Amino acid sequence: IVTAPPNAKVKPPVKADVEVDLKGEYQLVSRAWKKEPTAVKIGDREIAEGKIFVIAGPCSVESREQILSAAKAVKEMGAHALRGGAFKPRTSPYSFQGLGEEGLKLLAEARSATGLPVVTEVMDGQDIPLVAKYADALQIGARNMQNFTLLKKLGKAGKPVLLKRGFGNTVDEWLAAAEYVALHGNGDVVLVERGIRTFDRTLRFTLDVGAIAYAKQATHLPVIGDPSHPAGDRRFVIPLALAILAAGADGLIVEVHPDPDKALSDAAQQLTFGQFGELMEKARALARALGKTLE
Amino acid sequence: IVTAPPNAKVKPPVKADVEVDLKGEYQLVSRAWKKEPTAVKIGDREIAEGKIFVIAGPCSVESREQILSAAKAVKEMGAHALRGGAFKPRTSPYSFQGLGEEGLKLLAEARSATGLPVVTEVMDGQDIPLVAKYADALQIGARNMQNFTLLKKLGKAGKPVLLKRGFGNTVDEWLAAAEYVALHGNGDVVLVERGIRTFDRTLRFTLDVGAIAYAKQATHLPVIGDPSHPAGDRRFVIPLALAILAAGADGLIVEVHPDPDKALSDAAQQLTFGQFGELMEKARALARALGKTLE
Amino acid sequence: IVTAPPNAKVKPPVKADVEVDLKGEYQLVSRAWKKEPTAVKIGDREIAEGKIFVIAGPCSVESREQILSAAKAVKEMGAHALRGGAFKPRTSPYSFQGLGEEGLKLLAEARSATGLPVVTEVMDGQDIPLVAKYADALQIGARNMQNFTLLKKLGKAGKPVLLKRGFGNTVDEWLAAAEYVALHGNGDVVLVERGIRTFDRTLRFTLDVGAIAYAKQATHLPVIGDPSHPAGDRRFVIPLALAILAAGADGLIVEVHPDPDKALSDAAQQLTFGQFGELMEKARALARALGKTLE
Amino acid sequence: IVTAPPNAKVKPPVKADVEVDLKGEYQLVSRAWKKEPTAVKIGDREIAEGKIFVIAGPCSVESREQILSAAKAVKEMGAHALRGGAFKPRTSPYSFQGLGEEGLKLLAEARSATGLPVVTEVMDGQDIPLVAKYADALQIGARNMQNFTLLKKLGKAGKPVLLKRGFGNTVDEWLAAAEYVALHGNGDVVLVERGIRTFDRTLRFTLDVGAIAYAKQATHLPVIGDPSHPAGDRRFVIPLALAILAAGADGLIVEVHPDPDKALSDAAQQLTFGQFGELMEKARALARALGKTLE
Repeated sequence: IVTAPPNAKVKPPVKADVEVDLKGEYQLVSRAWKKEPTAVKIGDREIAEGKIFVIAGPCSVESREQILSAAKAVKEMGAHALRGGAFKPRTSPYSFQGLGEEGLKLLAEARSATGLPVVTEVMDGQDIPLVAKYADALQIGARNMQNFTLLKKLGKAGKPVLLKRGFGNTVDEWLAAAEYVALHGNGDVVLVERGIRTFDRTLRFTLDVGAIAYAKQATHLPVIGDPSHPAGDRRFVIPLALAILAAGADGLIVEVHPDPDKALSDAAQQLTFGQFGELMEKARALARALGKTLE
Repeated sequence: IVTAPPNAKVKPPVKADVEVDLKGEYQLVSRAWKKEPTAVKIGDREIAEGKIFVIAGPCSVESREQILSAAKAVKEMGAHALRGGAFKPRTSPYSFQGLGEEGLKLLAEARSATGLPVVTEVMDGQDIPLVAKYADALQIGARNMQNFTLLKKLGKAGKPVLLKRGFGNTVDEWLAAAEYVALHGNGDVVLVERGIRTFDRTLRFTLDVGAIAYAKQATHLPVIGDPSHPAGDRRFVIPLALAILAAGADGLIVEVHPDPDKALSDAAQQLTFGQFGELMEKARALARALGKTLE
Repeated sequence: IVTAPPNAKVKPPVKADVEVDLKGEYQLVSRAWKKEPTAVKIGDREIAEGKIFVIAGPCSVESREQILSAAKAVKEMGAHALRGGAFKPRTSPYSFQGLGEEGLKLLAEARSATGLPVVTEVMDGQDIPLVAKYADALQIGARNMQNFTLLKKLGKAGKPVLLKRGFGNTVDEWLAAAEYVALHGNGDVVLVERGIRTFDRTLRFTLDVGAIAYAKQATHLPVIGDPSHPAGDRRFVIPLALAILAAGADGLIVEVHPDPDKALSDAAQQLTFGQFGELMEKARALARALGKTLE
Repeated sequence: IVTAPPNAKVKPPVKADVEVDLKGEYQLVSRAWKKEPTAVKIGDREIAEGKIFVIAGPCSVESREQILSAAKAVKEMGAHALRGGAFKPRTSPYSFQGLGEEGLKLLAEARSATGLPVVTEVMDGQDIPLVAKYADALQIGARNMQNFTLLKKLGKAGKPVLLKRGFGNTVDEWLAAAEYVALHGNGDVVLVERGIRTFDRTLRFTLDVGAIAYAKQATHLPVIGDPSHPAGDRRFVIPLALAILAAGADGLIVEVHPDPDKALSDAAQQLTFGQFGELMEKARALARALGKTLE
């Protein structure tokens, strides 16, 4: 999918074969440049328009038992991929920083056990080869959305990228960040809305469903939503997840933990297995009402 | 429904009959005080949990022909009440300020013609008797959400109140504003989320579906959403409307105009009749998926 | 100063005598329309460019002793006007709502005792005659900045207006609100920056010194700043006050209380007399450095 | 200055020698842990409380002539260090990305020519050795404030760090980011306030002087301000710079260009030499009024 815009101010890495005339800060990812929606393959399954793709799993990989238990449970309830953090970006240096490569190995083991492809975060360009060795898709966290060196290196990562929107970034900046990845060689980018910072701190972040509605028209890339971080509290995850789908998103990424209250990070917002089952049931009904499938 | 909280710091207008011990700034409107949801009657129909209530009509009443045409169209497509502004709060004194009482009379005529109850804005306490003479429900605009003199007078208005959330106000302030109305004698308050101001101006306002999810748990009052003002552009009204319902709202208030591009206010965001018909169809499917009715 | 813009879309209350051609939502208050700065007289003294005007006093009038004590103290330390709220806009109906007319009488008594003109808030159009009977200037609170009915009535109030910026309002909306007052007959408007709502709640509000710098170029009206509400904590009032002046403001409005910890409202942010003395000393040095006077 | 907090949840890189008991997310950088202000040496001069330190120069290094001309001009007018970007974080991949190492060499040449120490941005951990070879202090941009891998590596950089606040980050997050650098071995951190994202886009960002006032009390590290990025327009840079100093900052970092309108980045906000001279003159008068020196 990646070719170069003819009016790029920097030399593109690949040759142009399409004429575009856009004013904005992104071109390759624009619907004006490519009308039909792009499907991004994760493992052997696609995130694509018309089908709801669900990624679920714990915030952090904490132990072999925890990740295997979570993987089996979400698989059984219909998730299409497993999430779990091995490298964790934490506000304080005194918080749990993740298990690192040990966590990646446990994720790979969970994939073997369940068949679910694995999505996990990479925090730095130097870690891409390590993370790409174990993961099926590389997640870029909100705090790194404008880490441009990292974005450029993802162009050569050889794995699809889940690009979370920065909580202080506009929709245009998010699309321009995706453009960095695409322009440097990797068009397999999935956009993830996860809430922004606003004056209202009733919930942890303000989920911006308008950004989903807008992005679905502005770009051909898949757009999914994360209801867990804006909720910040598991009581609100299900309504936010349904709102994400109703606004037009192509999927969800949601935190689920075998015993949320004992989690080493994001304890308040992770769903129990029972709650995830309830979410999946409601999401299936909603998908049908929207003329989509969730299978 | 209105009785007084025992630990109110000011003398309540009515006698307390329930013991409460809340820390917050509101009590009468809290779910902790009253568990079962409150239904608010508008005309001869209720806004109530489990049923989707749709209010539709133009931003402003502009002419007899315009409001009658809009009323008939939205009635036919299934709306339950007619909206239309006669007193218009406008940022600039040089913008169209509404038809005033003439507009109220036209709304009443549209009610006679269609049977739809009428919802319209009141901007000042002194106008309550005039507006209440024609309207079935009084809308309080976002910019007046903390006009406390007005809120107190609404306690004696004798008509239900639609309280829009201020675009710079927290959810707690919104509920405390409802408490003013309830404490002064009028428990028939419907909360309306209509988008907040955030750093992202991609759309006109940021629709806060998290506020809907939270309010539905925090208060027993009905909560509805306005997709038109956050969208600011009719291309985004339908996905935002569906997200409002999926987040748990009890209804919608949406702008519809016979010829939006010629509207005297909010031209870009008003739906055509055709688009409103599409919205209603999708909303019905969604309501069923959510286990609710839209009839 | 008030005349009508020739391209106003509504009929202006007074006759036009100047040609203007502005694109914006305000005209009368624009520097493009009137180059020289406007001086607004409060009592027998002016708020005017080049001179720092200081308004000080308690958040609320609480008792005869309290307001007289505060008035004498701030007068002695160099304040030019006395502030104090008699009608209080409070988020919760259970908070202290002010002494009403009793408070106005006490303010008038404090004026008699000290010679300081009195600035106090009016919350509703119907109260303008009552408040104007006692006060030298009418303050419009942040929550009423877009109460357009009130703004229109202020055009006929016969007293200068201090217009606080709404915490959710843009600078252009603030100037358009001033335009309402001016267009309806009262050009004596002083703009007051008092902090806006942002994602950062470290202090109570985010003081927007950029708004002061911008407004000083965009309008000929005086612009002053309130350091107390953004600080929310008296430890930060002095640095914010100095930043307000350095950004170009024409004065300050600051909360001072004889015994802040016992205050019925805003206890944390009111200065002690000693702190106010320290502020005045630093403000005088700063005024000189800026080539202005504070006398 | 760097030692470890005894209650750190992760193993600190250095040994603890002080007892602290703080609840927050940072400890080493807290005033509760170290009362006296820290002075950070850049070249042969200190950023320290009581003395105003001024860093000036173009947004980007564009050519030998440009950077030498700017360095000489700002040196002559009293700047203490030279700024200039060689690695540029740009929203769009199609914007000028900086001259890279060529730019670093030109900065070193400008240092030789003027004696001014050089401050320049490093965008990625892998570039630290390269940038540290040429620069006297390493700037971390707003978009990288929570690039935790980079922050950890700065602990071993051997050069002082200027840590810009992210435009979507709270003050506590900013201090916790400084804690990462300090905990990993480098206590020479200077905090830089540069404006945050808010709903008001009148200026480019909202300068948060309250953050400066708060940070000066919360941390012993130096705090400086950047008036150029929040202004976004050179007409507002001087009032914002003065507000930064009045709020208590220890210095400024300001963009100055020989011919701003022709700049390859941030053209609108860079000062001309004449304007920078005017700023320095006003800043000197202000410093004296605040009881500080600017020499």
